[in-house]
Amino acid sequence: MGALNGYIGKVLRVDLSSKIIKVEEYPDSFYRQYYGGEGFVGYFLLKEVPQGADPLGAENKLIFAAGPLTGVPAGGCGRHCVGAKSPLTGGYGEAESGGYWGAELKMAGLDAIIIEGMSHKPVYLSIKDGTAELKDASHLWGMKALELQTAIREELGDARTKVAYIGPAGENLVLYASIANDLDAFAGRTGMGAVMGSKKLKAIAVRGHNRVQIADSEAFKQVVFWIRDNTPTISRGLRDLGTARLVKILDTIGGLPSYNFKFGSIKEADTIDGEVIRDTIFVKRRGCYACPVQCKREVKVDSPYNVDPRYGGPEYETLGSFGSNCGITNLKALAKANEMANAYVLDSISCGVSISFAMECYENSLITKKDTGGIDLRFGNTDAMLKMIELIALRKGFGDVLAEGVARASKKLGKATDQYAIHVKGLEVPMHEPRLKQGLGIGYAISPTGADHCHNIHDTLYITQNNYLAELQSLNTFTPLPLTDLSAKKVSMLTYYSNWMHFLNCAVCCYFIMSSSLVGFERTSELVRTVTGWNTSVAEILRVGERAATMGRLFNLREGFTAKDDTLPERFFDGMTEGPLKDVPVDKAAFNKAVIYYFDIMGWPDGVPSEGKLGELGLDWVVSDTHC
Amino acid sequence: MGALNGYIGKVLRVDLSSKIIKVEEYPDSFYRQYYGGEGFVGYFLLKEVPQGADPLGAENKLIFAAGPLTGVPAGGCGRHCVGAKSPLTGGYGEAESGGYWGAELKMAGLDAIIIEGMSHKPVYLSIKDGTAELKDASHLWGMKALELQTAIREELGDARTKVAYIGPAGENLVLYASIANDLDAFAGRTGMGAVMGSKKLKAIAVRGHNRVQIADSEAFKQVVFWIRDNTPTISRGLRDLGTARLVKILDTIGGLPSYNFKFGSIKEADTIDGEVIRDTIFVKRRGCYACPVQCKREVKVDSPYNVDPRYGGPEYETLGSFGSNCGITNLKALAKANEMANAYVLDSISCGVSISFAMECYENSLITKKDTGGIDLRFGNTDAMLKMIELIALRKGFGDVLAEGVARASKKLGKATDQYAIHVKGLEVPMHEPRLKQGLGIGYAISPTGADHCHNIHDTLYITQNNYLAELQSLNTFTPLPLTDLSAKKVSMLTYYSNWMHFLNCAVCCYFIMSSSLVGFERTSELVRTVTGWNTSVAEILRVGERAATMGRLFNLREGFTAKDDTLPERFFDGMTEGPLKDVPVDKAAFNKAVIYYFDIMGWPDGVPSEGKLGELGLDWVVSDTHC
Repeated sequence: MGALNGYIGKVLRVDLSSKIIKVEEYPDSFYRQYYGGEGFVGYFLLKEVPQGADPLGAENKLIFAAGPLTGVPAGGCGRHCVGAKSPLTGGYGEAESGGYWGAELKMAGLDAIIIEGMSHKPVYLSIKDGTAELKDASHLWGMKALELQTAIREELGDARTKVAYIGPAGENLVLYASIANDLDAFAGRTGMGAVMGSKKLKAIAVRGHNRVQIADSEAFKQVVFWIRDNTPTISRGLRDLGTARLVKILDTIGGLPSYNFKFGSIKEADTIDGEVIRDTIFVKRRGCYACPVQCKREVKVDSPYNVDPRYGGPEYETLGSFGSNCGITNLKALAKANEMANAYVLDSISCGVSISFAMECYENSLITKKDTGGIDLRFGNTDAMLKMIELIALRKGFGDVLAEGVARASKKLGKATDQYAIHVKGLEVPMHEPRLKQGLGIGYAISPTGADHCHNIHDTLYITQNNYLAELQSLNTFTPLPLTDLSAKKVSMLTYYSNWMHFLNCAVCCYFIMSSSLVGFERTSELVRTVTGWNTSVAEILRVGERAATMGRLFNLREGFTAKDDTLPERFFDGMTEGPLKDVPVDKAAFNKAVIYYFDIMGWPDGVPSEGKLGELGLDWVVSDTHC
Repeated sequence: MGALNGYIGKVLRVDLSSKIIKVEEYPDSFYRQYYGGEGFVGYFLLKEVPQGADPLGAENKLIFAAGPLTGVPAGGCGRHCVGAKSPLTGGYGEAESGGYWGAELKMAGLDAIIIEGMSHKPVYLSIKDGTAELKDASHLWGMKALELQTAIREELGDARTKVAYIGPAGENLVLYASIANDLDAFAGRTGMGAVMGSKKLKAIAVRGHNRVQIADSEAFKQVVFWIRDNTPTISRGLRDLGTARLVKILDTIGGLPSYNFKFGSIKEADTIDGEVIRDTIFVKRRGCYACPVQCKREVKVDSPYNVDPRYGGPEYETLGSFGSNCGITNLKALAKANEMANAYVLDSISCGVSISFAMECYENSLITKKDTGGIDLRFGNTDAMLKMIELIALRKGFGDVLAEGVARASKKLGKATDQYAIHVKGLEVPMHEPRLKQGLGIGYAISPTGADHCHNIHDTLYITQNNYLAELQSLNTFTPLPLTDLSAKKVSMLTYYSNWMHFLNCAVCCYFIMSSSLVGFERTSELVRTVTGWNTSVAEILRVGERAATMGRLFNLREGFTAKDDTLPERFFDGMTEGPLKDVPVDKAAFNKAVIYYFDIMGWPDGVPSEGKLGELGLDWVVSDTHC
C-alpha cells in the first residue's frame, strides 16, 4: 500500500460482469484534488460513465467512497458516500451515510470501491483487510436488512463485520431505493439502491484491522479533544432529542411540510416531536463511529405495532414525510413506518412524498380506489400509508406506480396530477419548506442531485440560532437577512455555505459535527492538516467543494439538463392559504434572479461553467474528455 | 477615538478649497470590508469622485491610506498607499510606498487621509497625534526632497517628523510625478504626485506617539518572532544585494528590458548588478519600519557625479529603466539618475521608459535634434539621459513632451512613434519582460492601474525559486508550468496570486516580506487575527483582494475603459531578433484567450463584474451608486 502523505488508501475496482477485482493506486495529488466522497463520484462518473448510459444498465458505475478523514477517531469522521448516475433523476446521483461502514472500509485499507458491469446472479462482495472476493448471494436475495446483516455476519464468522446492503426495495428497482448499513444509516437519496439492485449486488461486507494513519498525532489530538469536549454541549438539543426536535420548532413557524406541502403546520404536531419520543418510546441514544453527540435514537413499540429497536428510531425527515406531510400524527405508526423503510431499505423522504402526492391526487379525485387497488388513500390514513410502503418496496399493485417517484408517477396518472408532484429534477423535496427557508429553495433548484438538503444552506433560521455564524464570519460574509430575502448577499452566503457542504461530502464529514456543532472552517482545515500532512487552508477546502459542485453540474449538463431545470415546483410560487406563511410565496422573479446570482458567483454563465473556471478548478480535462 | 475591535483608527478629511478639516469614524464592519490601502482608495474613488472628473481638477480626491496592520512592530507592516484618479491613465490610480510615514500616521491615530478640493496657494498639512492643521507652503514650493524635508522638520521643531511630499515634478504636473517619503520611498506609479501638485499640497508632515493597539499581544509576538528570525535568511539575496540582484539574473535569461524593450539583455549588464554595487558604491543597508530584511541601499559617489547618500541607492527598476532600457550601463550615472528622480520626485520607471521611447524614436529618425532641443538622444548617451530627467521634472524644452508619458507623447510626435510607446492604459511597462514572464504579461493587461508589477504574479520564474510555492500549495493550485504557458491553469495561479497582491495592497503590507520571504497566506491571516481580533481566514483575505481588484475594475469601466484596453503593446507579440528570447513572442491568440480566462475566474463576463459577483463581494451598492 502506498503511503499517501499521511494516510494509506487504494481504490478497489470490481467488475461484476467479468468478476475481475483489482486494486488501483492513485497519487497523492489525485487524492488532494478529488479528495474522496462526492469528489470521487464526480470524477469517476465524468471519466468513466458514458453519456446517455442507462442508470440501471451495465454501463453505470456505483462508487462507494470514504474521504481523507474517514476512520480517524474524531467526531464527524465516520461517514461514506455512494454515487452513480441516478435512476430517479437521470443525472448526477450521490448520497452520504453515517454509521460505521466507511470507517471500516478505511481500516481495511481502501478509500473507495468502484462497482462496474452487472452480475447475472445475486452476489455480495466481502472485503477483509485488503483482500476482496465476490460471493454468491442467491440465498440472501429477498432478505430485509436485519435478517441479511445477521446472515452475512454468521456466514463470514465475524460479528463485527460491517455491511452495506440493499433490501427488497433495491432488488425490485424502486427508483428511490437506498443503500443502508448498520440498520439505521442510509445513503438515502437519488436511488443508489436501485443501481446496486440492477447490478445484482446485495451487499458489501467489510472488516479491517488497520488504524488509519495520522500525520501529526499530537496536533490531531488537540482537535479531537475539542470536538469531544465541546460538541455535545453545543449540540445539546440534537443530543437530547435528535433531529426530531425540529418537528415542533418548524410547525410553530409554519415550516413543517404538511399535506403534501399544501400547509406548513399540522394539528397535534407536538405529539410526533422529539420530546414526546424521549418521554415515550425512547430506549437509548445511538450514533456513528467516534461521535460524541449521538443524535440517533433507538425506540421500542410493542402495540399496536411491533417495532424492533435494532432498526433505530424515526428522524425528522421520516416524521415529516410519512407523518405531517401525509397528514399523520400517530407516533407509533411513524416508528413502524421508519422500521419498514429501514428494513426494505428505501428513501423515507421520496417514499413519503410519493405517498403524500398520491393522497393529494386521491383527495382531489384525480385517482380513485380503482387506481390504488381499493386503498382509501386519504390524508391521515395511517394504515394506508403503512400498506403503501410495503407495496412500493415490493412493487406490488399501486406501489409499482409510486415506486417510480412522483415525476414519473404523475406522467402516468395524467397531467392534472403534475401540480402535486413536488420534486426538482425528479428528486422529491425533503422536509424543509422553501417558502420559509427561501435560500434553501435556491439550493433545491441548483443542487446537482435535485431537491436535496445535503448540498446547501439551511438558511438564516439557523444563522440566527448561531449555527454557522462563526464560519461565515471567518469569511466576513455574514449578514443577518430575512428568511425570504433572495438578494445577491443572501445568495453569496448560500454559495459559500453550499461549497462548504460539498466539501463535507468530499471529506466525507458530518454536517452536524463540522457545521452545527461549530467545528467550522478553520478547525476542519486543521483536522485535514493533522491527518494528511497537507498544507491546506480554508480557501482550499472551499475550493474542493466548489470543484465537486462543478463536477456534478458538468455531469448533468452532459446528460441534457439545462438552467431551465433549476427551478422549484409551481406550488412554492404561491403562498399558503393559512398559517404563519399565509400569502408568503417564493417570489418567482426574485427567485429566477437569485439562481442567476448563483451562476454569477460560481462562474457558470447561463448555468454552464466557463472555460477559465474549469481551468481554475483543474477540470479543464472535462471539456475534451467528455461530451460537454 | 473609537476602539475598532482591537485597533484605533479614523479618517481625516481635508478640504483644500474651504480649508475645513474633519475627522470621520467608520464602523469596524467598514474597516473589515474595505480594509485600508487599495480597498479604501477603491471605495472612496467610486463613492466620491464623479464620473469624468478631471484628474488634475478640484473634483479628484487624493487618498492616503494605511491598513489594519500598518505600524505594528512586525516586518512588512510599514507601508502606506496613495490613490486618486490617475492623470496618466485617466483611470484608477494607486501606488504603495514603504519607509516610515505610514506607521507614523497610525501612531498619530489615523488610518487614512482624504484630500479634496484645491488650494489656491501652496500649503502643507501638519498632523500631530490627532490634531491637524494646514500651513502655508509658499516658501517650500520649488524645493527638492531633501531640502524640503529638512525645512519642514526645522519649522515644526521635531526632527522625527515623517514627511510625505512632492518635488518639482509634482508641482509641474509631470503626469508620472510621485509622492515620496523618507527620501528613498515612493508611491511611485500612476502620477499621484501630479494630483498632489494640482491641489497645491506640497507635503503632509506626521508625528504620532500612540502605539498601534494589538488585540492579542502574545500570539502577535509569535508571528513577529518568526518574521524576525526567518525572513532575513530566506531572503538573503535581497538582504545582501537588494533588488539590484535581479539585473544579472534577468540579463542571463534574456529578460532584462534593454533598448526600449527591443532586447532582453545588454552587454556589460553585470557592471550595474547588485554585486558590483555592493563592491563599489555601497555604504550601508536601509529599510522600512520594523523590517528585518533591509533591502534598500545607501550609496555614495563623488565623481564624476556627486550622489548624496541620503537619497538611497538605485533599485532594480531604476537600474533597468534609466540603465539597460536606455542602453546605459554606467553605474555611477545610474546612481545619479536615481538621486535626481528622488530629488525631483518622479516615477523612475515611467520617466526612464519615456526617455527610452524618445531614444528609439530618435534612432529611427522619427524625432530629431529639432525636437529634442539639440540633445543627441541616442541609446547609451548618459549625459542626455541625465539631462532629460531634469528637463522632464521642470517641464522644460523636450522634457515638456516626455512629461506627459509615452502614450500622450507618441500622439504628439506622430503615428509612426506609436510602436515605440511601451505602455498599457497609458502606464509605462516596468522592468519585467512579458515575453519572458508571460503570466505577468496578463497581469499588465488586466491590472486596474495599467502595466504594473505590483498587482500581479511575477510568474513561474519565482515559483521555481520557491518564492510563493507554499502559498499556492496551501490552495493546492500550484503546478510548475513553463514561463510561456498561458493556459487556464496558469491564469488560475495568476488570479489567486493577483488577489493576494491586491490584499497586500489593502493591508498595506510588503510583497517581499509577506510573499517572497514566505510569511505567506496562513501566517499573514494569523497576523491579522492577532492585531485586529477578527476571526479571519485565508479565504477572507483572498476575498479582500478580489474585492479591491473588482473596485479598480469598476472604476475603470465607469471612466470608459473596456476589455479592449486589456492588452499589451504590439511589440511583445513579436519575438526578439536575438538573445535567449529570440523568436519567443507572446502568442496573441493565446494571450487574448488567457485574458478571458481571467475574466471567467473573476466572474467578469466580457470584462464586466456580474451582478451576483458584486453581491458576493458586498459591492452591490456600486451598480446603483455610480454610473456603472
